Amino acid sequence: MNQLTVVKIGGNVIDNADQLSAFLSAFSTIPGYSILVHGGGKIATTLGNKLGITSQYVEGRRITDRETLDLVTMVYGGLINKRIVASLQAIGCNAFGLTGADGNLIRASIRGVEQINYGFVGDINNNGVNTGLLTSLLSTGLVPVVAPLTHDKAGNMLNTNADTIAQQLATAMAHSMSVRLIYCFEKRGILADVNDENSVIRTIDARRFRELKEQNIIGGGMIPKVSNALDAVSHGVVRVVIGQAAELQGLISGNSGTIIQ
Amino acid sequence: MNQLTVVKIGGNVIDNADQLSAFLSAFSTIPGYSILVHGGGKIATTLGNKLGITSQYVEGRRITDRETLDLVTMVYGGLINKRIVASLQAIGCNAFGLTGADGNLIRASIRGVEQINYGFVGDINNNGVNTGLLTSLLSTGLVPVVAPLTHDKAGNMLNTNADTIAQQLATAMAHSMSVRLIYCFEKRGILADVNDENSVIRTIDARRFRELKEQNIIGGGMIPKVSNALDAVSHGVVRVVIGQAAELQGLISGNSGTIIQ
Repeated sequence: MNQLTVVKIGGNVIDNADQLSAFLSAFSTIPGYSILVHGGGKIATTLGNKLGITSQYVEGRRITDRETLDLVTMVYGGLINKRIVASLQAIGCNAFGLTGADGNLIRASIRGVEQINYGFVGDINNNGVNTGLLTSLLSTGLVPVVAPLTHDKAGNMLNTNADTIAQQLATAMAHSMSVRLIYCFEKRGILADVNDENSVIRTIDARRFRELKEQNIIGGGMIPKVSNALDAVSHGVVRVVIGQAAELQGLISGNSGTIIQ
Repeated sequence: MNQLTVVKIGGNVIDNADQLSAFLSAFSTIPGYSILVHGGGKIATTLGNKLGITSQYVEGRRITDRETLDLVTMVYGGLINKRIVASLQAIGCNAFGLTGADGNLIRASIRGVEQINYGFVGDINNNGVNTGLLTSLLSTGLVPVVAPLTHDKAGNMLNTNADTIAQQLATAMAHSMSVRLIYCFEKRGILADVNDENSVIRTIDARRFRELKEQNIIGGGMIPKVSNALDAVSHGVVRVVIGQAAELQGLISGNSGTIIQ
């Protein structure tokens, strides 16, 4: 069975040229097939401010209006995606940038409007990942670099969470490949003591997750991240690890970060 | 021998939503393999003005400094490219957006600096088109949509003329496929009388081109366009036609526009 490693990086790595460069060097050495999913970063916010686009938030969630959609399509799908692709190409990694619209890679639906209209935000459809396309690209020797954008196949690009995209790509490919999923974020792993980077919890399963939530050790934005990771495990992803981009090799070998199992 | 149609559209079509939509409908019905190459349009200039990026011109040519490069990477590679891809996907055409960096599709070199430093502008290398990748994408059923950006494989994106990209893709693919190249621009073809849209010159060869230049019927920006077209013919492209996007079907059948032979 072919081995596939799906790695997600967030804005903290993208916004730091030195960290990004070091990460991409490590990423390019991953054996077997690999896919990189990237998030946004501060560039979109900075540029939006310059353009007078002020994001609206409802209950802590950003609303993607038409202007914001155009902004993230430019910045995520154009600037960040192509910077990463050109940088990987320069170090011999045959990177290939995509959004969910390209080749109908990821089909999504505009988030159901109940109390809140989130605008052009996409929730990935059931069986929305085009595994045939991914398999074809990977077997051609290409390394997909995926921006956090999907489409509704009715002409609209949609803003979609990068963690979710990484999880859905990994899960969909787990039917035919041995898949590892690596989430890179700010910390070295999930910490027992948020102020101590050396307190990384080595493994978390569903039961331990419940305990850690009850003890308020896992809270806020970490809850959906760990839930996503547990979903991936329950859908056949062989290994899910959460940690720091600077320790990518350790995350892949399982010597660093928090393993979700 | 497989048939491939390479179509180039410019800013005048991209900037007009109705024209673009009608063009994409016609484009999606082209039989055989097809590739769409798109230019820029006014969006980059408008956005650049809002951001306070003022393009410098030297002898009528725009200088691509770092800020301008980021701008065109966002607008051409992100916004315009993904709008076109999402629109084609909505009408059942399996479009797939690329720049020259993606999968090392088009390798270029920063334009040689003599008197003038054009900045991040790329001239396509000899054998710079990755025909293996294009063949693989086409045979997978994908329709490449190519933005006017290349890379130097040293980490830099480069701004590159869309006419030249279309010509180079067509020429490179002419070794293995029967290739037609269609340039869409503002007029219905090359006009004997610039004020009369019904004065389309039906065919032009190298000799007629020299005559038309001497008579000042072809001048300015049309000279490189027709030169490009003649180059394509001399390198094995079966048919090159210049005309209006609204008449795409006629251009393909040879009933509209100016045929370069």
